[in-house]
Amino acid sequence: MSQKWVYSFSSQSTQGNRSMKNLLGGKGANLAEMCSLGLPVPPGFTISTEACLHFYETNKEIAPEIREEVLLALKEVEKITGKVFGGKENPLLFSVRSGARVSMPGMMDTVLNLGLNDQSTLALAKKTNNERFAWDSYRRFIQMFANVVMGINISLLESQLEDLKEARGVHEDTELSAQDLKELCDVYKSVIHEELGKRFPTDPMEQLWQAIGAVFGSWNNSRAIKYRQMNGFDDSWGTAVNVQSMVFGNMGDNCATGVCFTRDPSTGEKIFFGEYLVNAQGEDVVAGIRTPAPINEKSKNNSNMNFKTLEEIMPKTFNELVQMYQKLEAHYKDMQDIEFTIEEGKLYLLQTRNGKRTVNAGLKIAVDLVHEGVLSKEEALLKINPEDLNQMLHPRLDPQAEKTLLATGLPASPGAASGEIVFDSETAQNLQNEGRRVILVRQETSPEDIGGMSAAVGVLTARGGMTSHAAVVARGMGKPCVAGCSSLLIDYQAKKLTIQGNVFHEGDFLTFDGATGAIYQGVVNTIEAQLSDTFAEFMSWADEAKTLGVRTNADTPEDSLVAREFGAKGIGLCRTEHMFFAPERILAVRQMIFSQTLEERKKALDVLLPFQKEDFIGIFRAMDGYPVNIRLLDPPLHEFLPTKDEEISQLALSLGVDKKEILERKEALHEFNPMLGHRGCRLGITFSEIYQMQVRAIVEAAMIVAQDGVKVFPEIMIPLISDKSELRILRAEALEVIEELLKDFKGEVRYKIGTMIELPRAAITADEIAPHADFFSFGTNDLTQTTFGLSRDDAGKFLPVYTSKQIYHQDPFVTIDRDGVGFLVKRAVELGKKTKSELHCGICGEHGGDPSSVEFCHEIGLDYVSCSPFRVPIARLSAAQARIKSARGL
Amino acid sequence: MSQKWVYSFSSQSTQGNRSMKNLLGGKGANLAEMCSLGLPVPPGFTISTEACLHFYETNKEIAPEIREEVLLALKEVEKITGKVFGGKENPLLFSVRSGARVSMPGMMDTVLNLGLNDQSTLALAKKTNNERFAWDSYRRFIQMFANVVMGINISLLESQLEDLKEARGVHEDTELSAQDLKELCDVYKSVIHEELGKRFPTDPMEQLWQAIGAVFGSWNNSRAIKYRQMNGFDDSWGTAVNVQSMVFGNMGDNCATGVCFTRDPSTGEKIFFGEYLVNAQGEDVVAGIRTPAPINEKSKNNSNMNFKTLEEIMPKTFNELVQMYQKLEAHYKDMQDIEFTIEEGKLYLLQTRNGKRTVNAGLKIAVDLVHEGVLSKEEALLKINPEDLNQMLHPRLDPQAEKTLLATGLPASPGAASGEIVFDSETAQNLQNEGRRVILVRQETSPEDIGGMSAAVGVLTARGGMTSHAAVVARGMGKPCVAGCSSLLIDYQAKKLTIQGNVFHEGDFLTFDGATGAIYQGVVNTIEAQLSDTFAEFMSWADEAKTLGVRTNADTPEDSLVAREFGAKGIGLCRTEHMFFAPERILAVRQMIFSQTLEERKKALDVLLPFQKEDFIGIFRAMDGYPVNIRLLDPPLHEFLPTKDEEISQLALSLGVDKKEILERKEALHEFNPMLGHRGCRLGITFSEIYQMQVRAIVEAAMIVAQDGVKVFPEIMIPLISDKSELRILRAEALEVIEELLKDFKGEVRYKIGTMIELPRAAITADEIAPHADFFSFGTNDLTQTTFGLSRDDAGKFLPVYTSKQIYHQDPFVTIDRDGVGFLVKRAVELGKKTKSELHCGICGEHGGDPSSVEFCHEIGLDYVSCSPFRVPIARLSAAQARIKSARGL
Repeated sequence: MSQKWVYSFSSQSTQGNRSMKNLLGGKGANLAEMCSLGLPVPPGFTISTEACLHFYETNKEIAPEIREEVLLALKEVEKITGKVFGGKENPLLFSVRSGARVSMPGMMDTVLNLGLNDQSTLALAKKTNNERFAWDSYRRFIQMFANVVMGINISLLESQLEDLKEARGVHEDTELSAQDLKELCDVYKSVIHEELGKRFPTDPMEQLWQAIGAVFGSWNNSRAIKYRQMNGFDDSWGTAVNVQSMVFGNMGDNCATGVCFTRDPSTGEKIFFGEYLVNAQGEDVVAGIRTPAPINEKSKNNSNMNFKTLEEIMPKTFNELVQMYQKLEAHYKDMQDIEFTIEEGKLYLLQTRNGKRTVNAGLKIAVDLVHEGVLSKEEALLKINPEDLNQMLHPRLDPQAEKTLLATGLPASPGAASGEIVFDSETAQNLQNEGRRVILVRQETSPEDIGGMSAAVGVLTARGGMTSHAAVVARGMGKPCVAGCSSLLIDYQAKKLTIQGNVFHEGDFLTFDGATGAIYQGVVNTIEAQLSDTFAEFMSWADEAKTLGVRTNADTPEDSLVAREFGAKGIGLCRTEHMFFAPERILAVRQMIFSQTLEERKKALDVLLPFQKEDFIGIFRAMDGYPVNIRLLDPPLHEFLPTKDEEISQLALSLGVDKKEILERKEALHEFNPMLGHRGCRLGITFSEIYQMQVRAIVEAAMIVAQDGVKVFPEIMIPLISDKSELRILRAEALEVIEELLKDFKGEVRYKIGTMIELPRAAITADEIAPHADFFSFGTNDLTQTTFGLSRDDAGKFLPVYTSKQIYHQDPFVTIDRDGVGFLVKRAVELGKKTKSELHCGICGEHGGDPSSVEFCHEIGLDYVSCSPFRVPIARLSAAQARIKSARGL
Repeated sequence: MSQKWVYSFSSQSTQGNRSMKNLLGGKGANLAEMCSLGLPVPPGFTISTEACLHFYETNKEIAPEIREEVLLALKEVEKITGKVFGGKENPLLFSVRSGARVSMPGMMDTVLNLGLNDQSTLALAKKTNNERFAWDSYRRFIQMFANVVMGINISLLESQLEDLKEARGVHEDTELSAQDLKELCDVYKSVIHEELGKRFPTDPMEQLWQAIGAVFGSWNNSRAIKYRQMNGFDDSWGTAVNVQSMVFGNMGDNCATGVCFTRDPSTGEKIFFGEYLVNAQGEDVVAGIRTPAPINEKSKNNSNMNFKTLEEIMPKTFNELVQMYQKLEAHYKDMQDIEFTIEEGKLYLLQTRNGKRTVNAGLKIAVDLVHEGVLSKEEALLKINPEDLNQMLHPRLDPQAEKTLLATGLPASPGAASGEIVFDSETAQNLQNEGRRVILVRQETSPEDIGGMSAAVGVLTARGGMTSHAAVVARGMGKPCVAGCSSLLIDYQAKKLTIQGNVFHEGDFLTFDGATGAIYQGVVNTIEAQLSDTFAEFMSWADEAKTLGVRTNADTPEDSLVAREFGAKGIGLCRTEHMFFAPERILAVRQMIFSQTLEERKKALDVLLPFQKEDFIGIFRAMDGYPVNIRLLDPPLHEFLPTKDEEISQLALSLGVDKKEILERKEALHEFNPMLGHRGCRLGITFSEIYQMQVRAIVEAAMIVAQDGVKVFPEIMIPLISDKSELRILRAEALEVIEELLKDFKGEVRYKIGTMIELPRAAITADEIAPHADFFSFGTNDLTQTTFGLSRDDAGKFLPVYTSKQIYHQDPFVTIDRDGVGFLVKRAVELGKKTKSELHCGICGEHGGDPSSVEFCHEIGLDYVSCSPFRVPIARLSAAQARIKSARGL
């Protein structure tokens, strides 16, 4: 069977339907669908995206077989409309528009009124009895065609229009006469010839071929390429071309054009809502030159309340429109954004699509449609982009507020924050104690800044990427953060911040939006987030639908409670090292590190034990009834080393050695690549007493809360395993401590011991590791670093180039790389569960809150994902969607 | 079928053979084999290693079924010898010895003369007509048994012997009378009872059970465990126990005992060679208390030339021995080390084994045996441990020289070196220019030290492991190196080195042995390596046998020529970055790095281009006819940054900026984990002009030498690929440069473009990468780092603990980890060749010169390995052995 390139649509015969978006583009598929529904759509045809790809393959020529099909389809439109393309009596005119599988508004080219030339314009004037309309149409067409298809600088033509208006002493286009416009057409044509050295084509067929070629060509204009890069769309999709017979809303006062929404796109309320203009083309509504009128009473607002509604001036047509919108919403099962034109009293629909809406409106519409019986719960769940929930959970900038943009960094943690800037943790904490709102500004943050980050309302950094320390910790805290904004020049000494030449000192106010990365001058109003009942109802459906568990990454009782409110059912990753930085503990930590003997080290650990126990008691209580997965000490020890002179002196004093020795030992702890260094279980192997202290703290805390009736399920997680023997040894050592503690205990503490799979070798040899583990938790942050050989702290320097060149289609630290990292995770789950069917498997990397990654986790059969508290709802919805999609074979 | 635990051996019936080493231990298997050959071996039986394992499983009890088999075997020995165990007339005595599958000399326990008690000693005296011999045997037995089996402190008994000698006024044991010895036996027994609270067992069966248990138990004494750890032997093997009837070389002057070698173990010459003692036990020969006599004329040397030979005093027995040794050598097809005892004129063989020999002797013996028609070439190739060739290729310490050991570090690069110590590269180069021999001493080396390392005769470092910079580069240069010797305390300022309290200044002499890690005071004589014709002949057989290609890693024409002499057929890895450190180039490199604009950068690159071209011309000429694989720039740029103040000033001046700016830009280039940072192809992607300069240099160099008639096969290797797109882009960019250059070229330059597979993701997605690559070269150093999440620069701190705890059985940077890294390499080869059958695959990590890793490379079907020049012969032999073994199903 030879390939089909062109698909007709009309009330008489339609070859496409809504499911053919990849082939016909979104617009083409919807036009076909509307025709099939019997709605009044101006007839036309769609040239497929495959024809676009073929166009590029054949050196940007439209192949003869495609031209042939176009001609056949064109004949059919002539037959249906009774008009003739380029005809001298009843000329058929076309719009020629792009249409990719997803909407790329304004990115590609459109030509209207195609088919006009000197003859057909006369015919149009005669037929419509409106000479001015005809020449104005022609004038617009020449201008558009010359610009879009022939590539002339549009200002060369516009200046002619301006000159003419000046010569006539008028201000508005509409004040020009038919004769004026006719002359202008001739002027345009000579300017084109002069400027481009070729003539404006007056043969309609020639116009059509050129326009089709131009629309195909616009797929690869730089604007469109950039847009696809930003949105992650594939260059290989191509665009379809929709050639549709023109209807005119601007032929007189019995004509109109408008846009309507089947529900309120701002609030989601169920009201029919729209605007229209009498005697106008669609572009006029969009361009906003004239204020449009409301289509009905409900659409009135302050600026349009004095206009007559469409319902009033054309009641019959309005009623037709009402019936059509109801039909369309019921058919598409979603709020529709409909473009219509009324030509001499006859209603035409030019486009329908799922309407854009605010996140809150989207949620309300989805829930309402379930209540109305239009959607099933599962269908409603698929309507919401999980990432959009972010907007609902965080404060955001007042969209009405005025703001001065200073710079833009990476949108590292969503939410808006406004406050006084400070440059160190101590000041942040002091000012917060005085009840002031501060923004912590740092080159980059380190674990020592945790206190300051916690005290601040938001964090700004000059370095680091989306998974830098600042970004990860801020997301964990649900705190807004803009990271890696290289325009920030920070002078710690002078407590001074320079942004693009603007200087700010400590105490000056800034505002930023962590969802966009934008940093603004001074205070900009923010709006607090509020979770509605609709949200709660919707999320309860998600929980019914999903099979994947959702836990949270939390290190404090406070975070645990927040996450629990957001629906987390347990903790998937509790990092113990953050607990070590509190001022009253850090000295003991440092004593431990600098100990030369086992006794010294044990003494320091004895100081830390009660602190750790307190931490765990708080978290266990907050997570009553749910598992709490605690990772034993993971980072390289030198993260805890003193850096300031006074800290070094204090440590030297406490250990009874001189400063020089501290500095020497510090030097000896230096590592070239700490990420690959003496950390994780390697600490447990070399200093087993550290892990034993932590295990003791966990179990003693569990025993204490269990006696108070708390249901406690501690999970002890050993990080950075590369070989089964590490886990075998450390598990045995932990069990020894645990069994000794629980020997005479009467209450119940059901514990597990397992490991993080975060090194390629652990994933590859998972079958050997599984016998020693009750669970696997995939640390996909580190697994991504090692699989790619990519330090997330350093990747900021070249990762942007990588994404812009489409080498990596997504930042692998944001969305799990299925081909590489995903291969390892999948393999480890398969090998692990094959060896031990009851092995519990989860993910605790940053990916646990990313929708595409959550989908992957569902597909490969993980038991749960774990993510920062504020991403828990996103993970829940993503998990539900993954389940629904896979059940439906999507 | 029930399990068999005990295997008899005797001239009448033998149940084992030499192939049963795992079950019977080496000694037991050989005793059985000798019996089968009809050689006069004192009869006995072997209790299997499985019985040893069973012993540990049953709480260190000898199970009844094992005891039963022992008793049956014992009866058989009684029958054959006509003696009775514990008998009062003709007592049967046993030796009880350990015997694991490999020899662990002196590590486990032995008991001789077992079966003696007060009665049987009398019987022995009567039968041998030698009362003194009988009581001395009993005395020795009690002493040995009490120590080995019962665990008494041996000095408690020895002091009794000393007291007795003092009381009798004699100096030698032999001066004590039979009565003295008899009394001593009683004293021993009472000391034992007093000290241990239990009695010396006089029941022979009880003696036997206890001795067997003790030998089994000695498998897990700390000495044996340590020895196994050091040698990588498995704890689960267990030891066999050999119970053998005693024969006595010390019953009078018609008795003797000796050791002989079928060839000279020092030179390999084909001469029968050995020593013996009249009227002595085997232990006496080994202990060296009496000077042994030569068995024949050829065995005479300065210290024994006046003794009578065995040939002279017992010609008949000597002739029997000659026949036996010839039979044994022919049977075992190798030089044998034979222990014999002559009891009253009758010759017994107690042990035969493949004799230990020097490396040179081993080679000569193997080659001679081929010439003699005893061995096939393939069998001869299997006789030599490839690692041993190292000794032949490097200078070594004169074994006769006196030396004072100062400290021991890691044996990082073999060979001995003697010279004046210096602490910096500049001094090293200056002194070398004066013709002085220097040893470069550094905390650790960096690429900036290349010049100094090259000028020095050897390198010592205080930090770093077996794959540290110093170790890798030194091996590459074939220079001796001891690395990571933490006893070296270096004071650069004072130019002072302190080793265990000894202070050395610049210019003081040291000597060290890179094969052992030992560092000696002053100058110790060294012996230069010389490659013999035998070596050449042997290696030619290896080349015939192997299918795997062997290339070298070399960065200079000099190294290339050395490697070619050692048999390398091409270069598998030529690192371009080392070329950047020469003083006349480094400034341009730094200018390139600090360039802010493309123009600045191109200007600096233009300076470097001719240098790189010269480098390649030299290497191409040296490798005429062979492929040269050149890796484009790989390390993070900051390795090239200036560190010294004057370098910074110079750079600032040359760029026309101030020092502060240089320091700031340097700070901006800092990376947390440079190994995972902005390096490898990431440099090529972000600064494509760097790679383009290098490609241009390669191709222009190739064109120049090709015109001179050199056969040149450049291979351009792009490092650190994580995704196919990187290679696709960089390949296309390289091709553009190449095609432009070759457009009008008349000569032939056959080039390839390929990639290093050194990241897990590249290995996992090899099928996607293969279409863009002409070859894969596995960079197993970095692949090991990323697969294990282990920085080789930092692993020194904990890797020793890991190997000592047997978590990693081998250092994964020395021997490829088959389970993890090997899985990835194997997968990549399979996927790569499936996608592109002509894909050429090799390995260029340090593993390419490690025998076990080479074997793995052969097994998985690689085309070649590449290693440092001095390891090329090792790789060739390893490749041959791998081929032979796999062909034989070994």
